[in-house]
Amino acid sequence: MRSRPVPDLVEAATNGDRLSLARTISLIERGGDPAREVSRLMFPKGGSAHTIGITGAPGAGKSTLTDQLIRHIRSEAGGEREVSVLAVDPSSPRTGGAFLGDRVRMQDHATDGGVFIRSMASRGHLGGLALATPEAIRALDAAGFPLVIVETVGVGQVEIEVAGAADTTVVVVNPGWGDAIQANKAGLIEVADIFVINKADRPGVEEVERDLNWALDQTMWPAWRPPILKTVSSTGEGVPELMAAIEEHLTTFEKSGELAERRALRLTDELAEIVARRLEAKARAAVGESRFDDLRTRMTGREIDPHSAADQVLESIS
Amino acid sequence: MRSRPVPDLVEAATNGDRLSLARTISLIERGGDPAREVSRLMFPKGGSAHTIGITGAPGAGKSTLTDQLIRHIRSEAGGEREVSVLAVDPSSPRTGGAFLGDRVRMQDHATDGGVFIRSMASRGHLGGLALATPEAIRALDAAGFPLVIVETVGVGQVEIEVAGAADTTVVVVNPGWGDAIQANKAGLIEVADIFVINKADRPGVEEVERDLNWALDQTMWPAWRPPILKTVSSTGEGVPELMAAIEEHLTTFEKSGELAERRALRLTDELAEIVARRLEAKARAAVGESRFDDLRTRMTGREIDPHSAADQVLESIS
Repeated sequence: MRSRPVPDLVEAATNGDRLSLARTISLIERGGDPAREVSRLMFPKGGSAHTIGITGAPGAGKSTLTDQLIRHIRSEAGGEREVSVLAVDPSSPRTGGAFLGDRVRMQDHATDGGVFIRSMASRGHLGGLALATPEAIRALDAAGFPLVIVETVGVGQVEIEVAGAADTTVVVVNPGWGDAIQANKAGLIEVADIFVINKADRPGVEEVERDLNWALDQTMWPAWRPPILKTVSSTGEGVPELMAAIEEHLTTFEKSGELAERRALRLTDELAEIVARRLEAKARAAVGESRFDDLRTRMTGREIDPHSAADQVLESIS
Repeated sequence: MRSRPVPDLVEAATNGDRLSLARTISLIERGGDPAREVSRLMFPKGGSAHTIGITGAPGAGKSTLTDQLIRHIRSEAGGEREVSVLAVDPSSPRTGGAFLGDRVRMQDHATDGGVFIRSMASRGHLGGLALATPEAIRALDAAGFPLVIVETVGVGQVEIEVAGAADTTVVVVNPGWGDAIQANKAGLIEVADIFVINKADRPGVEEVERDLNWALDQTMWPAWRPPILKTVSSTGEGVPELMAAIEEHLTTFEKSGELAERRALRLTDELAEIVARRLEAKARAAVGESRFDDLRTRMTGREIDPHSAADQVLESIS
């Protein structure tokens, strides 16, 4: 089977063809020259989507909450508002895809043309996910989705970075002592625009709310102090209020100019990241060359430390 | 107060002075030239420590389990065996250190000279933690600790990378359906040498064990199939068996030559990472320069995409 040229694929994807859209995202995920071409062609077509990042510890109920947000968005305005979801999933390429139980639920929306759901895996390399996610968001944006929800599975640095790169970042915690502490430790307080205490029908809501407030009190919030909402994602309770808060955040940030600033900063960060990754590829290729075998042997023999070895590599590749 | 010269500090640290050791690790954490000097001086002095990585989702009981491992190690062989712990904690620099409740427990060992516990924070930059951790491990190794336990707080890609860079990696999960799935999603199956079902006095142990076995069945394990152990870290139940499994893993890998291979591979990875980070710093500095202001404006105006902008930056800095 011959694959279609990238410009055709992008054209179809931005004209509403979902299969083409899925394919452009696969190209982005795989990286390399086709991904760059997709990026170059998609870039001028986007710029109007509101991106919502959803992050939190595994098991906090992020998928169910995303599912409820979709239901809510689709039930409003006569079903006119379309929504796409990017589920960023650092599954291993070795066993990845074997367990997708909680994604299956989202397939309830499979027959709804106004909903597009896509998983993104890291394919094993660190820079990949952080770089591929904004590209995929732009593809969904260029395809005309006014709302792009980015949900992360884990809660590590990369996942937080990914979710934190949205216009509005929602951090999901659960009731009980310790969850606010974990959120703080993981650096979630830094990226949150909105906190959600999900599973709020369980005991311990007051404790986690008090802890979050305490943590928020440690910082000055001149424009927007992250509100703390409560949801029960299994029933959908609190979801309309969450959506209202998300929209209020967007409006506030749009008015203050902070949204434009955030987006410009994100592009600059992305540029620096792309430049860094390309240089990194150069570095890794160099270190893998046979002319550095001797350096590796000397490191293993404890004759030379990695920093001094790096000096020699840098000298010879620059 | 004048600070002591680095060579004096390293000398004292490797001669048993704990305060000097703590200071060398602070230098490593901060990075830059002093960190490189510490690394260069420490490197030839180490090479004999057994490093044990402990990772798993927040709340799985990693800290309590580490605490019990320390107790067990110190109670054996007449208390002769010393142990150090590096708690890798991506706390934010803004609010970091405010919540350290579950670390305080470890202070039970504060008066025991045979135990050295140290937290390492990421200080906000991604490469920092991944690079600083092996340096800090080597400092503890050079200071003469035969065992270095590296415990991570989160379970993201960087945390897994850090814990997975140990000689023996222990992945902690909890009973209940879903935990094995989350472990698999997070890529933990890939790095585990040993699985521990902690809080094994709770219901759901069989389910998580079955799921883990199912996940492990998807891969061939010619030399060592990760065993699944059960612990109750609050009481210490199962901890001697865990320590025995850790030692068995080391012995097996030492005999087969895989340990030496793993360590050599780690050094090569570290070298490539150092080279990449130095090039990255160069890239970030370049993108921050005023000569690229125009490029940023054009990106924000959607005239040029980040990949094409990167081409121009790379051309002008190489």
